[in-house]
Amino acid sequence: MQKPSIPKGTRDFSPAEMMRRQYIFETIKGVFRTYGFAPLETPAMENLSTLLGKYGDEGDKLLFKILNSGDYAASLSDDEVRNASRICEKGLRYDLTVPFARYVVQHQNELSFPFKRYQIQPVWRADRPQKGRYREFYQCDVDVIGTRSLLCEVELVEIVERVFRALGVRVALKMNNRKILYGIAEAIGHADKMMDITVAIDKLEKIGLENVKAELLERGLSQEAVDRLQPILELSGDNAQKLDRLSEVLAASETGLKGIEEMRTVFGYVERAGVAIPVELDLSLARGLNYYTGAIFEVKALDYAIGSICGGGRYDDLTGIFGLKGLSGVGISFGADRIYDVMCGLELFPEEVNCTTRVLFVNLGAEEEAAALPLLRGLRDAGVSAEIYPECGKMKKQMEFANRRAIPYVVIIGSDELAAGAATVKDMRSGEQRKVAFAELADCLK
Amino acid sequence: MQKPSIPKGTRDFSPAEMMRRQYIFETIKGVFRTYGFAPLETPAMENLSTLLGKYGDEGDKLLFKILNSGDYAASLSDDEVRNASRICEKGLRYDLTVPFARYVVQHQNELSFPFKRYQIQPVWRADRPQKGRYREFYQCDVDVIGTRSLLCEVELVEIVERVFRALGVRVALKMNNRKILYGIAEAIGHADKMMDITVAIDKLEKIGLENVKAELLERGLSQEAVDRLQPILELSGDNAQKLDRLSEVLAASETGLKGIEEMRTVFGYVERAGVAIPVELDLSLARGLNYYTGAIFEVKALDYAIGSICGGGRYDDLTGIFGLKGLSGVGISFGADRIYDVMCGLELFPEEVNCTTRVLFVNLGAEEEAAALPLLRGLRDAGVSAEIYPECGKMKKQMEFANRRAIPYVVIIGSDELAAGAATVKDMRSGEQRKVAFAELADCLK
Repeated sequence: MQKPSIPKGTRDFSPAEMMRRQYIFETIKGVFRTYGFAPLETPAMENLSTLLGKYGDEGDKLLFKILNSGDYAASLSDDEVRNASRICEKGLRYDLTVPFARYVVQHQNELSFPFKRYQIQPVWRADRPQKGRYREFYQCDVDVIGTRSLLCEVELVEIVERVFRALGVRVALKMNNRKILYGIAEAIGHADKMMDITVAIDKLEKIGLENVKAELLERGLSQEAVDRLQPILELSGDNAQKLDRLSEVLAASETGLKGIEEMRTVFGYVERAGVAIPVELDLSLARGLNYYTGAIFEVKALDYAIGSICGGGRYDDLTGIFGLKGLSGVGISFGADRIYDVMCGLELFPEEVNCTTRVLFVNLGAEEEAAALPLLRGLRDAGVSAEIYPECGKMKKQMEFANRRAIPYVVIIGSDELAAGAATVKDMRSGEQRKVAFAELADCLK
Repeated sequence: MQKPSIPKGTRDFSPAEMMRRQYIFETIKGVFRTYGFAPLETPAMENLSTLLGKYGDEGDKLLFKILNSGDYAASLSDDEVRNASRICEKGLRYDLTVPFARYVVQHQNELSFPFKRYQIQPVWRADRPQKGRYREFYQCDVDVIGTRSLLCEVELVEIVERVFRALGVRVALKMNNRKILYGIAEAIGHADKMMDITVAIDKLEKIGLENVKAELLERGLSQEAVDRLQPILELSGDNAQKLDRLSEVLAASETGLKGIEEMRTVFGYVERAGVAIPVELDLSLARGLNYYTGAIFEVKALDYAIGSICGGGRYDDLTGIFGLKGLSGVGISFGADRIYDVMCGLELFPEEVNCTTRVLFVNLGAEEEAAALPLLRGLRDAGVSAEIYPECGKMKKQMEFANRRAIPYVVIIGSDELAAGAATVKDMRSGEQRKVAFAELADCLK
């Protein structure tokens, strides 16, 4: 018989991994909750009509399609099979954003706006699997929809601060504004080429200033326009200084000035709130997604090289694709897999996250077991994660079991302990042993 | 544009539903954890070779199959499409048991046995959707594998007790043992017909004694055998009395006596542990699944008619299907959807589960907002779920928003409050208002 396996690009999460993942998700959820964001879940399967055309041609190809159940039409041409047009009506969700937009439009009459929701669920992409890229992975999104208030941007900055403070990860947050990017394009006389300019600027960090300039020329910008762009690419100073300088350069662009004003407002709030992480205006930040219309966010870990671990922005027409116009929203997404890698790499998980059971009772015989069971129950009543080795057996084997499971405390009850009414408690990390009266066991191991 | 929708048989879970569902899952997880069960997650997609043939012919038809991504072979016959043999290699998991068995076999060398895991994930079945039956639903399984110790059965009984005590649902637990059922078949001279007898007995509650007897005759049992079965179907008294009577009737069946002995042991432990829910031997309990080999469990709510809300049993060869023989295990599954319905029906959810935000600050202007933000931050520091209406606007509209969202407390800061350094706190349920000094707000609303 062949050893069983799972589809490529998918993962089992072992108990040890799950403990750490749950720690990350619970921490993030806890912060979301204190900001009044409410949980939402949508089905894994969406109608293909909901998904198709929302992620570009490339995205359409990466959708996992689900074969219709039941009987198929008797005759299908090869083309029909290839297009999956008659044999598939459903697909697995590709992200949480489109299902969220679909949900908001479908339930618009039941919702109170502004609507604040978070959503932590897996998504599926038929991407070529490679290191750090999976075909099934969790997204962890938080969005508020139905208001243009910049307080929402500030809340997201605060959420980023609180989440990573709670996780112990030092981060820096970079912000930009799509309106400023448009203003720049307008100011250098290429409003029609905002996307080209944005895409090129986005590569600034990767390929350097000279290559970006070369690419812009290739994309059809005049040398003059590129020259006018250069000082913008080389802006320096703090956020206020950069915005002051920008407001001179973009004086002729109404949209650009609006973007500058938005960023001044957000930075002002952030400063008054005493946000303790660096929040920096970075014009090279563009992010690939073309639906952002205002603020753009990106978070990087300071002590671990892994790319962005959190990002998002404001979009003005997310629900328009489903026919509901004029709802503005803003949201960010936490990259759970990368946060996991950062925390493993920096050894930031608290010790208690590394064990699933705190106390193991060894099982040395029927009489000893009978004495252990009520004590075990007492520990569980006190909320301590505890178990008894379910079969009577050799002490050595049971101690090895505790070690392999990384259980920190072992309680030994043998004939001596029975006689004394006190258990031997062994600290498996230090090797220290001590006697604890039965009645005090729960208090001692809490 | 068509109003967007979701595939039939699937559901969106709104924030209000999610809060209640999370409450159920968190309660259950908390109990699992105190018993040393560790979380596990497996991918939504499994290889079809893992899934096919594990749930019977009917089950195979109910698998959701995922179309291979990428290019298909140029020529596919209709038959191939119908069989999905070349166009699908993956399917969505149908339950959590088969993926668990697959995981244990695949990772047998990394695991320490006995291995205690819980798993809470959705499963998918291409069933015809109907009231209370969905095509996507969560299962919530807890199993220990790699030991025959009856302490595990007792732990599961205790877990049932603790979970439903924590949820406030009054329940009764019924137990049976597959070995006793075999013993009965043997004792009436129809060992070959254990499955028929079991299936018929399972219907006792639904169709009554006479119909069960008629069905048994139809299934080929002799009148004499049916007559010998009757006293067993009409056993009365407490568990000990039933087992005593059974041990007389099944005296000739070694397997039957073994089953009786197992139940005596389990009931003995349960009694000594002081388990406070009724735990009753019920010979009519068979459950459809044919892989159980020992104890069988079923839990019903006492105050709400909805069928079984939890069930499971011991299996001796779960991993055999993947080539790993001789691993015995026992587990139960909590029916989250039904538990949800019971708790809604009996109004058992605590009040705090019904609101996502505890405190709303109304927003009456720039100056008021500036005073509110640090107070809001203080509440969040104290772990209170709080938000500010993100736009300045009419009091009435903001109060309505709080009401629709079921937010219990509203904090009002207007010009009077600014002058006094004290906010007005309104209890939205009672309508009561009081003044609270800014400095005391967090303490007062915790």
